[in-house]
Amino acid sequence: MQSPRRVRDLGVVVGTLPTGPLNAITDVPGVRVGQTTITGDGLNTGVTAIVPDGWAQTLPAAVAVGNGYGKLIGTTQVDELGVIETPILLTGTLSTFRVADALITWLLDRDPKATSLNPIVGETNDGHLSDIRRRPITPQHVHAALDTASDLLEEGCVGAGTGTCALGFKAGIGTASRTTPSGQTVGVLVQANFSGLLTVLGRPVPAQPIDADGNSCMIVVATDLPLDARQLGRLARRAIFAMARVGSDYAPGSGDYAIAFTTARTPDFPDRDLRAPFQAVTESVEEALLNSLTMAHTTTGHQGRTAHAVPHDLIVQRAL
Amino acid sequence: MQSPRRVRDLGVVVGTLPTGPLNAITDVPGVRVGQTTITGDGLNTGVTAIVPDGWAQTLPAAVAVGNGYGKLIGTTQVDELGVIETPILLTGTLSTFRVADALITWLLDRDPKATSLNPIVGETNDGHLSDIRRRPITPQHVHAALDTASDLLEEGCVGAGTGTCALGFKAGIGTASRTTPSGQTVGVLVQANFSGLLTVLGRPVPAQPIDADGNSCMIVVATDLPLDARQLGRLARRAIFAMARVGSDYAPGSGDYAIAFTTARTPDFPDRDLRAPFQAVTESVEEALLNSLTMAHTTTGHQGRTAHAVPHDLIVQRAL
Amino acid sequence: MQSPRRVRDLGVVVGTLPTGPLNAITDVPGVRVGQTTITGDGLNTGVTAIVPDGWAQTLPAAVAVGNGYGKLIGTTQVDELGVIETPILLTGTLSTFRVADALITWLLDRDPKATSLNPIVGETNDGHLSDIRRRPITPQHVHAALDTASDLLEEGCVGAGTGTCALGFKAGIGTASRTTPSGQTVGVLVQANFSGLLTVLGRPVPAQPIDADGNSCMIVVATDLPLDARQLGRLARRAIFAMARVGSDYAPGSGDYAIAFTTARTPDFPDRDLRAPFQAVTESVEEALLNSLTMAHTTTGHQGRTAHAVPHDLIVQRAL
Amino acid sequence: MQSPRRVRDLGVVVGTLPTGPLNAITDVPGVRVGQTTITGDGLNTGVTAIVPDGWAQTLPAAVAVGNGYGKLIGTTQVDELGVIETPILLTGTLSTFRVADALITWLLDRDPKATSLNPIVGETNDGHLSDIRRRPITPQHVHAALDTASDLLEEGCVGAGTGTCALGFKAGIGTASRTTPSGQTVGVLVQANFSGLLTVLGRPVPAQPIDADGNSCMIVVATDLPLDARQLGRLARRAIFAMARVGSDYAPGSGDYAIAFTTARTPDFPDRDLRAPFQAVTESVEEALLNSLTMAHTTTGHQGRTAHAVPHDLIVQRAL
Repeated sequence: MQSPRRVRDLGVVVGTLPTGPLNAITDVPGVRVGQTTITGDGLNTGVTAIVPDGWAQTLPAAVAVGNGYGKLIGTTQVDELGVIETPILLTGTLSTFRVADALITWLLDRDPKATSLNPIVGETNDGHLSDIRRRPITPQHVHAALDTASDLLEEGCVGAGTGTCALGFKAGIGTASRTTPSGQTVGVLVQANFSGLLTVLGRPVPAQPIDADGNSCMIVVATDLPLDARQLGRLARRAIFAMARVGSDYAPGSGDYAIAFTTARTPDFPDRDLRAPFQAVTESVEEALLNSLTMAHTTTGHQGRTAHAVPHDLIVQRAL
Repeated sequence: MQSPRRVRDLGVVVGTLPTGPLNAITDVPGVRVGQTTITGDGLNTGVTAIVPDGWAQTLPAAVAVGNGYGKLIGTTQVDELGVIETPILLTGTLSTFRVADALITWLLDRDPKATSLNPIVGETNDGHLSDIRRRPITPQHVHAALDTASDLLEEGCVGAGTGTCALGFKAGIGTASRTTPSGQTVGVLVQANFSGLLTVLGRPVPAQPIDADGNSCMIVVATDLPLDARQLGRLARRAIFAMARVGSDYAPGSGDYAIAFTTARTPDFPDRDLRAPFQAVTESVEEALLNSLTMAHTTTGHQGRTAHAVPHDLIVQRAL
Repeated sequence: MQSPRRVRDLGVVVGTLPTGPLNAITDVPGVRVGQTTITGDGLNTGVTAIVPDGWAQTLPAAVAVGNGYGKLIGTTQVDELGVIETPILLTGTLSTFRVADALITWLLDRDPKATSLNPIVGETNDGHLSDIRRRPITPQHVHAALDTASDLLEEGCVGAGTGTCALGFKAGIGTASRTTPSGQTVGVLVQANFSGLLTVLGRPVPAQPIDADGNSCMIVVATDLPLDARQLGRLARRAIFAMARVGSDYAPGSGDYAIAFTTARTPDFPDRDLRAPFQAVTESVEEALLNSLTMAHTTTGHQGRTAHAVPHDLIVQRAL
Repeated sequence: MQSPRRVRDLGVVVGTLPTGPLNAITDVPGVRVGQTTITGDGLNTGVTAIVPDGWAQTLPAAVAVGNGYGKLIGTTQVDELGVIETPILLTGTLSTFRVADALITWLLDRDPKATSLNPIVGETNDGHLSDIRRRPITPQHVHAALDTASDLLEEGCVGAGTGTCALGFKAGIGTASRTTPSGQTVGVLVQANFSGLLTVLGRPVPAQPIDADGNSCMIVVATDLPLDARQLGRLARRAIFAMARVGSDYAPGSGDYAIAFTTARTPDFPDRDLRAPFQAVTESVEEALLNSLTMAHTTTGHQGRTAHAVPHDLIVQRAL
C-alpha cells in the first residue's frame, strides 16, 4: 500500500510562483491549524480549526459563494462588516451547528464580556463514509482542535477531511502556499468533497466515480497582504475559479465556498497589482486540492463503503 | 397597569388594505406558529417557530439583508435554490446555533433518510434583559415550540420576543396580515429589537432610549401568493423598508433581515401586479411592529434592568 | 403663484444635525454641480452633473439598488473596484446612453491616453411631462453641464429634474447636507420621480396622485469622510431607506438607486462610529427630497399635461 | 496561410454531449445572430447582435459577473425583473454607449408606445488592434447587425470579435451548442478577449503573450430549457467557471460576464436535474472559446500591431 505523499513530492509542480517554507496555509505568519479526527464504528469525521493570531481584534475577510448549496455559518455579517471575529472551523454538514455552538462556548470562556459573536463554520457532507446522522462531534472535539492549533498541519484523512471524497477518490484536507513577488504569502487550506473528473496539470485521470451524497468544497485563503474586504472577495472568487483546474464539475448540489482573510489590518494595496496575488491563490488552490487527494488513504466507513486513494502512479504519469 | 392590547384596538389603523381574520401571519392558510417562553432568574428569552405546511417538500423563499450585523442561519442556500426546506425559528443571539442543532434533531426524527438539511434560524440580541451568555435554550424548548404550533399565536413578551426591546420600549413578537385584492393573504411576524424614535402613523412618540447591546429586527413574511423566489425577494426588501415607518434608525450594529416564503409552489404572478402585495407587506410590517410594542408588558430582567411597556395613551394620542 | 422656497425656509427642520453652509451637496469640499435645462415644445428634461475634484484619480464609491427597475450605467465596475473614475451624470431614461456617450467624448478630450472608461449615468423617467422619445439631449448639453459645474446649484425644475414628478406633485432636483460631529460633511443630491403619499415630518399630505409612466429616484451621496467602498455601500443603503420618510411606496416599477462616494482616498473610519454618518445621510435625503418638491414650480409639458407644485401652505401646516 | 477551421474539424472534441445541428447558439430555436464588421484604416471592430424571437414580450434571463471590470449595460434591471426586453448586442468598449443608443432608436421604431427600455450591451476592449478612441460604430452598423440576424453566423474576426485577442493569439467570436438528454438545446456565443495560457483539452499551448489593453470575455448563453431567472443565473455562473478550461487567468482588469436567457417563458424544471444543463454550458463555452481562436485569422491593425492566429497544428498536437 502506498504511503501518502504530497503531490509535489510526486513530481507535480503546480504553477511558477515559489512556495512558502512549509507549502502550507501556516506559512502565513500567525496562522495556525488544529484538527480533531474521529474514526471507527462507522464514523469518519472531525473538526479542522484555522486560528489566526489577532482574530479577537477582527481581521479583514470576505466570502465568495460558487454554488450556495451549503450551510456556511456567518456569511451575512462578513459581507456587512468585512471582518471575521473568530477562528474558522470546518466539519461535517449535520454537525455544523453544534460545532458553532461549541465555538461560542470556547469564545465566551475567553472573553467574559462578549454578548454577540459571529462564528464562522464551514462544512461539507462526509455522509458517504461517516454515519452523519449521529452528529458525533462534541464540544471537547472542537476545543481540542482550537487548543492544539500549530504551524504543523496534517493533510489527507484528518479533521474535517476524515470522511470526504473528491473527483472519484478518497480526499480530505489539503494545503499549499505561495510567496508573492512583494514578499508576502498566500496560503490555502481545502476540505475537498466534490465531483468531477480528476485533472492533473491539465490532463484528466480516469477515475471511478463515487456515488456520494453531497458534493462540496470549502476553501480557506489566508494572507498577510494588506488587502481590504473587497479585494479579499476578489481573491476568494479566484479560489472558486481554481477548482476547475483539477476537474470540478461544479455540480448543482455542491456547496462551493471560499473565505479569504488577511492578518494585515491596514489595507494598502492597489488593485492593479492583484495579478500576482490572484495567481498565488489559483496555484495554491490547485495544489492544495491535489494534496488533499494524494495525502489521503483508502478508507472504509459507514455501511461498509470504501473510497480508494488515488494511485500515485496515475498522478505521476500525468505529470510526465 | 395597562393590559396588553393590539394597536388596532387602540384606534390605530395602519394603511387601507383589509386584514385577515386573525390579523396574523397564521391567516396564511397552512402557516402555524409555536412559541416557548423562558423567564425568571435573570432570563427573558425563548423560541418562536413558524411552521408552514409542506415545508418538507420545500417552499419558495428569499432573504433580504437590510443590515447584516446578525447571524441568520441558512441564507446562502436560500439564495442559491430559492427555497426553504425546514420551519423557521427565531431566538436570542448566542443560542442561535444550539437552536439550529435542536432543529436538526427534530428534522432527523421526522425523516429517517435525511443527510443534509438547511435550518433557518434568525435571532436578535435579548441580552439587555436576559443573561444571554447562559444560553438557556434546550432542545426541549425548541421541540415544544415546533410541536405546539397552531393558528393562534401570542404577541409581546413571548417566545423569541420575551426579552427584546425596540424604539426605547419593551417590545417582543408582533404579527399582522393583509388580504390582497386578488383574495390572497400576506402575513408578517416580527421579532422587534431595534433602535430609533417610535413613530405612530407618522408621528413621533417621545421615548427614553434604552442603551441595549445589539439592535436588530427579524421579519418573517408568509404568503399564499404564487410568487417565485425572485419576487419573494422583492417582498422581503419592502419588509426592510417598512421598518422606517415606525422610526427605525437602521443602526450600524443592527441585524435587520427579512425572509419571505410562499405556500404556493407553482409561481404564476406578473411583476406588474406586485404593487398590492408590496403594500400588504408594508402595512403588515408596520402594524406587526406596533403590535410587538403595545402587546408587551414592562419587564425586569438581567442585572435588574427594566424595560417599560409603551404607555398606550401615548399611542392613542398619536392616532388622533 | 408661490415662489419656490426651500423646505427649511418654510419652517420644516429635518432632524437634529447641523447643515453645511449651503445645505447642499456642494458643501462637501471639492464637489461641484452643473446643470443643463431643456424646456419648451413639449420638452422638460435636462442633465445634472456632479463633478468631484479628483475624479480622474478615482474616488472610493459604492452603489445601492433599492429597486432595480432602472438603467443606471456603470454599476458592475463600481461593485468590483470600489471606485468611480468619472463625474456622475443624471438625465431622462431614454437619453441615458447618449449622455454616457457624450461623457465619453468629454473624457477622451481630457485624457489623450484613455482607452477604457466607466461612465456613471443615472436616470429617471421624465416622460410624463417631456416627449421622452425624442431624446433631445445633445453632447453640447452634456458638456455644458460638466463645464459649468460650481458650488452653487439650483433646485426644483432644473437639469435632470426639469420634468420629474414625485408623490403626486411636480418635483425635480433637491439637495441638502449635514455636518457630522467629527467635522466632516455628508451632502446629498436627488432626482425625485417616485410615487407614494407625501409625508412631511411624519405627517401625510393629501395629494392627487399623478398617473405617470415610470417612477424612480436617483440619489447621489457625497462625503469627505474617510470611508472605504464597503462603508459607502452602507451609507448608500441608508439613502434608499430614507425615501420611506417622505412617503415613498417603493413601487414595483421604480428604479431606486443611491451612489455614494468620498473625496477622501485613504480609508480610516471605524464602523462603530457610523451612526452619525448614517443619520447625516438619512436627514439629508429626507430634506433633499422635500426641497425637490418645494423648489419646483407647476409645469405643463408633453401632450399638455400639467403637474402642480405642492402648495407650500400644506407643507407649513404639517410642520406646525 | 491556414484557413480558419472550427476546432472540432481539427479533431478536438470537447466533452461528451451531442452538439446541435449547427453547433451554434442559433441551434436554440428562434435565436438568430447578425454581425457588422468594420475594418481598415486602423480599425478592427464591429457589432454582434443576438436576436431571440419574442424578446419584445420579455424572456427570462440572468447575469453572472465573474470579474466586474467592464461596462455591460442593463444588469440591475435584469437582476430585479429576471428578464431581458431587447436583443443583446456586443461591441468594443468605448462604443458601448452609442451602440446602446442606436439600439434604443431601433426599438423605438418598432414600438410606437415605448417610453422605457433596458438595452443589453456588452463589450470587450478591442483597442489593441482597433483605434478605439475613434468610436466608429454608427447607428447604421448597429441596425444592420440587428436586421440581418439569421441562423447562420460567422466566427472569428467578425462583428464584435473583429479586433479581439485571447490567450496570446488573435481571437474573436466563437459559438457552440449542446443537446441535453431531455432534448433541448444550450447554445453559447463568446466574444473572447482575455489573457491566460491557452489550454486545449487540458493541455497548455505555448503562446506569446500579447500585451493588450483590457482583457475581458462576454459570454451569451441561450437555451429553450424552461428555466427561471434564478436557474439561469446558475447556468451563467458555470459559463464563467468554464473559462478556466481554456486557460483564463481571470486577470484583475478583466470584465468577465455571462448573460443567460431562455426562449421558454413558463419555468418548469427541477434544480436537481440541472447537472446536464450545467455540463452543456461548460462544454459549449469551452468549445466556443476554442472556435473563437481557430476561426480567427492573423490581423494587423491600429499602430501596425499584429496579432497572430493560433497555428492549427499546435491545436492538433494537443488534441492527440
